[in-house]
Amino acid sequence: MKIARYEQDGLFYHGVLEGNTIRRISGSIFGEYRIEEQKISLEDVRLTAPVNPGKIIAIGLNYKKHAEEVNMALPEEPLLFLVSPTAVIGPQEKIFLKYPGHPTEHEGEIAIVIGKQAECISAEEASSYVLGYTCCNDVSDRLLQRKDGQFTRAKSFATYKPLGPCIATDLNPDQTAIRVKVNGEVRQESNTSDMIFSVTEIVSFVSHAMRLEPGDVIITGTPAGVGPLKHGDIVEVYIQGIGTLLNEVLS
Amino acid sequence: MKIARYEQDGLFYHGVLEGNTIRRISGSIFGEYRIEEQKISLEDVRLTAPVNPGKIIAIGLNYKKHAEEVNMALPEEPLLFLVSPTAVIGPQEKIFLKYPGHPTEHEGEIAIVIGKQAECISAEEASSYVLGYTCCNDVSDRLLQRKDGQFTRAKSFATYKPLGPCIATDLNPDQTAIRVKVNGEVRQESNTSDMIFSVTEIVSFVSHAMRLEPGDVIITGTPAGVGPLKHGDIVEVYIQGIGTLLNEVLS
Repeated sequence: MKIARYEQDGLFYHGVLEGNTIRRISGSIFGEYRIEEQKISLEDVRLTAPVNPGKIIAIGLNYKKHAEEVNMALPEEPLLFLVSPTAVIGPQEKIFLKYPGHPTEHEGEIAIVIGKQAECISAEEASSYVLGYTCCNDVSDRLLQRKDGQFTRAKSFATYKPLGPCIATDLNPDQTAIRVKVNGEVRQESNTSDMIFSVTEIVSFVSHAMRLEPGDVIITGTPAGVGPLKHGDIVEVYIQGIGTLLNEVLS
Repeated sequence: MKIARYEQDGLFYHGVLEGNTIRRISGSIFGEYRIEEQKISLEDVRLTAPVNPGKIIAIGLNYKKHAEEVNMALPEEPLLFLVSPTAVIGPQEKIFLKYPGHPTEHEGEIAIVIGKQAECISAEEASSYVLGYTCCNDVSDRLLQRKDGQFTRAKSFATYKPLGPCIATDLNPDQTAIRVKVNGEVRQESNTSDMIFSVTEIVSFVSHAMRLEPGDVIITGTPAGVGPLKHGDIVEVYIQGIGTLLNEVLS
């Protein structure tokens, strides 16, 4: 199932994507709900980010080829930090470069959407705490990332965390193609099988550092091929089984 | 005015502290409210953290003498990162050491409680976005802080962010004494006048990095004198005009 969130006549709903239509979800996607019969054309709604996370936990350096690309040793355990949920935008929304003079790069990532409260859980039980997966573009200001040392500010500016287009609930996150295009040209192309730490290992690890709440999002690191963004660029993060998250860059 | 949050008969309320009594607040402390006439004895309630923050923004290295103590150059601008709101506990609650074998230290700090949404505001207008100030003990696992480089995990474990006992709304945050005792012995003693960046400069700076929401908390760095915590310790963070935040350490 693919769960999206959309605006219709000024109100916001979750719904189930089926081709070019969406069926409204009544109730909470984190609790009890039912799916309405009526099919609404996607042309009549505007998709938003599929979730408004309370927390966004980011994992650094989690693809083997990206670690080689930046000349870093493979980490012994996941490296985590937090970015501000106020940075989230949805599909088709614009990325506004806060500092157009700073090198600012795309990072396509598979994002885990937490489905229920999780604290100190094992990797074996992690899957049952996950609602599904979506695409994220972890837009990063490299100048401030290096200057601060702490990664939060460089990755938290408004519009720097596009999420979407939907949450895929039936995905195998360990064997999933991921591809980022800028203006139609492939920049990142990989598979989650190149991850150093798997999705279930990450969820377990994070749950031992902090309690996870429904709607929290974990972004799982980016593969090789990160590169600069500039005014007018069209960035597409495609993940197999989820779809394409497309955003234009403005400055 | 001193705003506390309390539990009575299983329900949670904000109230105004007056000596040994509290008067319930009806409505939202971030919007319209009124203060009830009835005075409730503090013996009949349990104080909790005065706010449940959506975000906790932490500022590193913000006292001149602490910068000397750790042999760091004074920063040119505030260094920010995020810690998990799930780490918050209230006055009198226990700090549980996640890794008793790791050096884990107290950091007494004045915490800013945001009163209304703030984005890209100036230092001159910052005060009007602040609801008030409370005490924070920014408990930090030094081993993981060094190992990760990113400070989030070392400071986000459950119970590592005691807040309280109340939000003081009429404080001059630029001339306020701060003192931390462990088992009655003074460990940190300073004044916010030793801060490198003032409260209004910090609020403005953070608001340019991410949108601030009502209830968000900014912890503003710790003065010289940080030191280890162990099982059985009683830690008290006192800030003039706010009061004393007392927590026992367990492992």
